[in-house]
Amino acid sequence: MSKEITSRKEDYSQWYNDLIIKGGLADYSAVRGCMVIKPYGYALWENMQSQLDKMFKETGHMNAYFPLFIPKSFLSKEAAHVEGFAKECAVVTHYRLMNDPDGKGIVVDPEAKLEEELIVRPTSETIIWNTYKTWIQSYRDLPLLINQWANVVRWEMRTRLFLRTTEFLWQEGHTAHATAQEAIDETIQMLNIYAEFAEEWMAMPVIKGVKSANERFAGAEDTYCIEALMQDGKALQAGTSHFLGQNFARAFDVQFTDRQNNLDHVWATSWGVSTRLIGALVMAHSDDDGLVLPPRLAPIQVVIIPIYKDDAQKKMIDEKVKEFIDQFKALGIKVKYDDSDYARPGWKFAEYEMKGVPVRIAIGTRDMEKNIVEVARRDTKEKTAVSIDGLATTISVLLDDIQQNIYNKAKKYREQNITPANTWEEFEKLLDGKGGFISAHWDGTTETENKIKELTKATIRCIPLGNQQEEGKCILTRQPSKERVLFARAY
Amino acid sequence: MSKEITSRKEDYSQWYNDLIIKGGLADYSAVRGCMVIKPYGYALWENMQSQLDKMFKETGHMNAYFPLFIPKSFLSKEAAHVEGFAKECAVVTHYRLMNDPDGKGIVVDPEAKLEEELIVRPTSETIIWNTYKTWIQSYRDLPLLINQWANVVRWEMRTRLFLRTTEFLWQEGHTAHATAQEAIDETIQMLNIYAEFAEEWMAMPVIKGVKSANERFAGAEDTYCIEALMQDGKALQAGTSHFLGQNFARAFDVQFTDRQNNLDHVWATSWGVSTRLIGALVMAHSDDDGLVLPPRLAPIQVVIIPIYKDDAQKKMIDEKVKEFIDQFKALGIKVKYDDSDYARPGWKFAEYEMKGVPVRIAIGTRDMEKNIVEVARRDTKEKTAVSIDGLATTISVLLDDIQQNIYNKAKKYREQNITPANTWEEFEKLLDGKGGFISAHWDGTTETENKIKELTKATIRCIPLGNQQEEGKCILTRQPSKERVLFARAY
Repeated sequence: MSKEITSRKEDYSQWYNDLIIKGGLADYSAVRGCMVIKPYGYALWENMQSQLDKMFKETGHMNAYFPLFIPKSFLSKEAAHVEGFAKECAVVTHYRLMNDPDGKGIVVDPEAKLEEELIVRPTSETIIWNTYKTWIQSYRDLPLLINQWANVVRWEMRTRLFLRTTEFLWQEGHTAHATAQEAIDETIQMLNIYAEFAEEWMAMPVIKGVKSANERFAGAEDTYCIEALMQDGKALQAGTSHFLGQNFARAFDVQFTDRQNNLDHVWATSWGVSTRLIGALVMAHSDDDGLVLPPRLAPIQVVIIPIYKDDAQKKMIDEKVKEFIDQFKALGIKVKYDDSDYARPGWKFAEYEMKGVPVRIAIGTRDMEKNIVEVARRDTKEKTAVSIDGLATTISVLLDDIQQNIYNKAKKYREQNITPANTWEEFEKLLDGKGGFISAHWDGTTETENKIKELTKATIRCIPLGNQQEEGKCILTRQPSKERVLFARAY
Repeated sequence: MSKEITSRKEDYSQWYNDLIIKGGLADYSAVRGCMVIKPYGYALWENMQSQLDKMFKETGHMNAYFPLFIPKSFLSKEAAHVEGFAKECAVVTHYRLMNDPDGKGIVVDPEAKLEEELIVRPTSETIIWNTYKTWIQSYRDLPLLINQWANVVRWEMRTRLFLRTTEFLWQEGHTAHATAQEAIDETIQMLNIYAEFAEEWMAMPVIKGVKSANERFAGAEDTYCIEALMQDGKALQAGTSHFLGQNFARAFDVQFTDRQNNLDHVWATSWGVSTRLIGALVMAHSDDDGLVLPPRLAPIQVVIIPIYKDDAQKKMIDEKVKEFIDQFKALGIKVKYDDSDYARPGWKFAEYEMKGVPVRIAIGTRDMEKNIVEVARRDTKEKTAVSIDGLATTISVLLDDIQQNIYNKAKKYREQNITPANTWEEFEKLLDGKGGFISAHWDGTTETENKIKELTKATIRCIPLGNQQEEGKCILTRQPSKERVLFARAY
């Protein structure tokens, strides 16, 4: 092995950090809670971005860019929003530094104090709705379907690479509509896009649902979400889509005249996913040997490693590889030929295993004589001798198979880890043992939800869409309930 | 006309603002000096980004992402850098807000003061080189070829949309090399990429040169630049590429062992272009009727506008357009069929003229009977009747022609506006009259350069690469000089 990874069993949390750092996805930075996204991790993000962006544009959205800074007073305009977001955030108070009069480096110039402090955006509803006020007058200006790719800052006390960092990258969609129904449809459409992306691109099964009032976005009427299950039995919220009602339009006085010339406030949605998805992806599929990346998002889909004893052999292999590498590229396969002489094949094998490259091809002169190469798939570790004839096509099919296989595996795990609980005893036992999603009745009150969280650290992850209606009794209070909801401990 | 634009002659600066605002590229925001990039402007930026990113990747660069915040002390580590960048910047001093004890909104929590203030990055050399310290140990880790797409903040006192804003978007390349020569080669390579992009994509001719010591990037050994000429005779620096020597490697103690096992500091470059390019693009080609966008970057290359009297005619046109619109798309032409019923054709004509759409096609039933459409090109305003047969191919050729034509036009203007001056009188007269680049001798001292700037507001834009050597006398001091340099007033 090139680098040692802690096993999941030994220390799940350390295993995760090892993968991120040693797999070359990210690094800690000199700034508390902020990370450096390394080229390999960023390439993964670019692949995610590019597919999501395509899906957004296909559904009529356009990108735009709004300021990084939000005047402090804006945050107070929407009553619920300020409670959720105004607390832990980066505050810009000054706009100039000066040489230290005592001659030691530089200090903040006390003369350069801002009249009103600026907040580094934790999310952009306020600055965007303040802008929409000037863009929207009539029904002709609607719907307004805008997305922004940006960095945001939330001053988190406990941070974890990708999962919870002070600064993170994300996209935030902010749309404006003439009717409540149209806004709700948009909210659901984006939830479906997120689910499709998670399942078909990340190979990560998700449950679509709606949040309880307690877990709603600050300022939303309804928050929809996709929830995934990680290998340690904890849930992870992978994306949210909010129906904001007329709350922000009221707060920022955004009104429009409809076709009948009536004046009304605009209806809104917002929706976002972030670099947190990379954390989810890592935890969904990887194993004790390193990352396992889904082919459709992997920065390198196939790595080719030459096995040779001398320059003459190397040259023969180079020529052979040259022949078929173009066929790979013609099929759109992202292939890397690693013929660096810094490391031996065994080291390289371990390195690309660590990096989660879906397919590894080893090629030696003896194989070449037989017109074959050795193909190893990362997900199952299976190795097979494969004919060089039609290799690119074989690999293309294999990549699809790997994509499907890791999805199936994760799906099966998820299915096995949704467990009903009917008594409080069962509920607690499941949480401390098997983990996963626990399907249980709840009396519908925030009070009970908070009490359960206090007692067990489990939260209601969501009320699944199209949930079966069923009479029952709340797991904690035994009050009557009409449906089960999904509880879990979560990231 | 849909909206009135101030003419260039009347007020060049207002003309520019009108184009940006009324052309839908950007808007002012509620935050001093920060702008909102509107969907049409952002689509232009995305087109620029996508081409530049491709060129960076083709030359072996990878993207990564580094923190938005820089610890204050980092800025002091490189002596020249701190002078250039530490002064006007956004300073984060606190990380929490709280409810105002007096009950009025929210205030900064005095308890949540940072031990060390954080600076919102004005450029990222310091945070990146602090990271490279842990990434680079050996010659095997070099070259390190990294680029970042990011937002940066410089607290500008006088701001102008796109040209100079407090926050702007840019890319910053930061590379590390084993030898000075390799770093210099990289610096020049990136300069050439910028020049190629400016000329072939933006259709904007540029002069490649090197900056005088005075105009160098803070911390660089040499700053190379591309300089363009705007229609008001002022120059605009469109991109810079810096050879940083070992300055940042020394400041952050980044050393590597070479093949002979000697320890040395790493050699560095950095290079960047920003959303300022959009300002340059607007000023390079546009006219009194609105934007003129080069086809290779235009978000909409062709707009089709139906001319009809009733629904029956509209239906016939729709069917015809449907037939050839797919042919446009097959050729990769970005086409929009504007059949909205909100506005009349004349209004639409003016609107797309304003937005700089390179080609407008008008189609009416009478034309259809003759199997023709009316094609208008934005650059020359020329209108022609064009056969519907092979229309997509005709338009494709036309787009290439427009791209070339606006480049030629700008090139001719630039050539006519590089004027030699041999006496101070000539120099001053040119500056206040014709403007443009003035080619004049300079004694090579910063003192003289500053004096000239003080007297005339003109600066040395660059010493052109491959500059002709010629004996002469400094335009101001009459001291001996070996070459002419380019002076201009600049944005």
